[in-house]
Amino acid sequence: MTVTTTVRTAAALSRPPAAAPQFLDCIAGDLARVEERLAETTRSDIGAVRDISGHTLLAGGKRLRPALALLAARLVGRHWDEPRAVSAGAAAEMIHLATLMHDDVVDESRERRGKPTANAVFGNGITVLTGDFLLARAISLLAHNDENLHVVRVFSDVTVAMAEGEVLQAHVAHDLEITEATYEEIIGRKTAQFLAGCCETGAMLGSATDEERADLRAYGCDLGIAFQITDDLLDLTGDPRKTGKPLGTDLRDGRVTLPLIHTLKTADAEDRTLLRDLLSDSEISDEHIAAITAIIARHGGFEAARRAAEARAQCAGAHLHRFSAGVYRDALERLARYVVARDR
Amino acid sequence: MTVTTTVRTAAALSRPPAAAPQFLDCIAGDLARVEERLAETTRSDIGAVRDISGHTLLAGGKRLRPALALLAARLVGRHWDEPRAVSAGAAAEMIHLATLMHDDVVDESRERRGKPTANAVFGNGITVLTGDFLLARAISLLAHNDENLHVVRVFSDVTVAMAEGEVLQAHVAHDLEITEATYEEIIGRKTAQFLAGCCETGAMLGSATDEERADLRAYGCDLGIAFQITDDLLDLTGDPRKTGKPLGTDLRDGRVTLPLIHTLKTADAEDRTLLRDLLSDSEISDEHIAAITAIIARHGGFEAARRAAEARAQCAGAHLHRFSAGVYRDALERLARYVVARDR
Repeated sequence: MTVTTTVRTAAALSRPPAAAPQFLDCIAGDLARVEERLAETTRSDIGAVRDISGHTLLAGGKRLRPALALLAARLVGRHWDEPRAVSAGAAAEMIHLATLMHDDVVDESRERRGKPTANAVFGNGITVLTGDFLLARAISLLAHNDENLHVVRVFSDVTVAMAEGEVLQAHVAHDLEITEATYEEIIGRKTAQFLAGCCETGAMLGSATDEERADLRAYGCDLGIAFQITDDLLDLTGDPRKTGKPLGTDLRDGRVTLPLIHTLKTADAEDRTLLRDLLSDSEISDEHIAAITAIIARHGGFEAARRAAEARAQCAGAHLHRFSAGVYRDALERLARYVVARDR
Repeated sequence: MTVTTTVRTAAALSRPPAAAPQFLDCIAGDLARVEERLAETTRSDIGAVRDISGHTLLAGGKRLRPALALLAARLVGRHWDEPRAVSAGAAAEMIHLATLMHDDVVDESRERRGKPTANAVFGNGITVLTGDFLLARAISLLAHNDENLHVVRVFSDVTVAMAEGEVLQAHVAHDLEITEATYEEIIGRKTAQFLAGCCETGAMLGSATDEERADLRAYGCDLGIAFQITDDLLDLTGDPRKTGKPLGTDLRDGRVTLPLIHTLKTADAEDRTLLRDLLSDSEISDEHIAAITAIIARHGGFEAARRAAEARAQCAGAHLHRFSAGVYRDALERLARYVVARDR
């Protein structure tokens, strides 16, 4: 069983993940090398660690974080150190996967992208520990290159921010009074800072000037906000066959996101009371979700969130004006449009 | 409530933890500064993160890992950079606390050192996330000093090993066929490599030669094996009022440790069958524990484990012969005797 898994992992990892959008073709070779590095780096001599890492690696992620680091490095392009860029991309993905594994334990999620989560297959305990393994392995991979201290700094700081963001999110769960500012603080910490860190890392690896580095960070930050608002929208308006998770998971877990925040602010007293009643039930059924989304739709909550995401994606693109046009800038611009237009 | 916690934390942290043994007086000032650094570094602006970190910091740890790093640095003594030494000690303790928090979630432990665990008070989810916060914050603290890449390397590698050791331990839980070699591999990864890493870090901070560094690593490794064998002994023979946890916790969690491994190898067929029957029951009661410890005692399992721990502690001391005599070498020698003689 262990041998089979390993063979399957090696074969599957020799090609880039199926979900990578076409405009990333300009870094397809780099992404393939990231997959190889991921396979090597997660190859523990402890069978269970290898199996769970393999399960998570093969779950069909978008590899957005490695792509950002690679595109930023290529865009700046003053310097190209392939082993370092590939390692930085792999480390970013490992940190991301580790936090997903821990989040799934925290949220007791059974499915992600239409596949069973690691905790559903292997149990909470070993999943928490394998998350720790991936997190530490990512830092170790970076720390074994003598020039990488600043990369370690960026990635450890974003990991601190992600943990804080997730705790803050858990802390305000079910709180219908949260403001847009609190919502943005949560998604800033749990998503946007990491994407900003990936762009910053790529910029540093490409020997960016201070201004270029700041621009790419700002791009990643706005991209991250746009990405997360869209994620939260898809939770309520997406097609479960495409998103791979049931509608309204956020609502069931008590996560109050932008469409709802907007609606709670703008709806009339009657609809506000109705929303509060629906959300205060101990069990949120599919009928509850349908009723809640109808109220949100009536008050333009989805439209407001979509506009907010699009505005941020546009801001992200605008931060790239300093860079000369070409495939890499084009890919980053298209990526910003993609994160808000995607349906999965 | 948050304010109260913070005030209490600050006051309690201004003195070294009560549990520090007297022979650490030679580094009492250093340990006090580690406490200050711990308090500063875990001061998140997210209230819940601060509360849970504070709860764990105040739970009365021995601060063994900072002590090892500080003693090793002082012993080598060719160089003394207080801020770096204090940060390394604080980072080691934060990594240790993070792994304890995760282990308590994995094992569903409700008490540690006679106090409720973080997961018992705050729940599993926020405890997993605050563990991640502490882990990442430790790396971040180290990575913000330009000379620390090798320290980051050591600490991330030991964290990888700890996660692997814990997974291996979970994987072989309830397996009565495990050998002494597998047991030593588990405790090597989950405990000894970390203590070795603390000593190695201290050695590097003190500008050790390669030989001194190897000696101090070897000291830490043997110390760690002795420490963990003793911990496992105390689980079966300690006084719960002193250890702060119920007798036989390891047995109930399916952890097969040295006294039992020894007994399963040396007992007659009748006692072996009796042991297997007792251990295969779905619920291990206090009566089960008493019957099991009686069989182990009859076959000298505790004595064998105690001798193994003492032999390792002696090996640890022997690795220090190259260093000149003085308070720091004396403290490390006494520490090796202490870890096997302690009753808590």
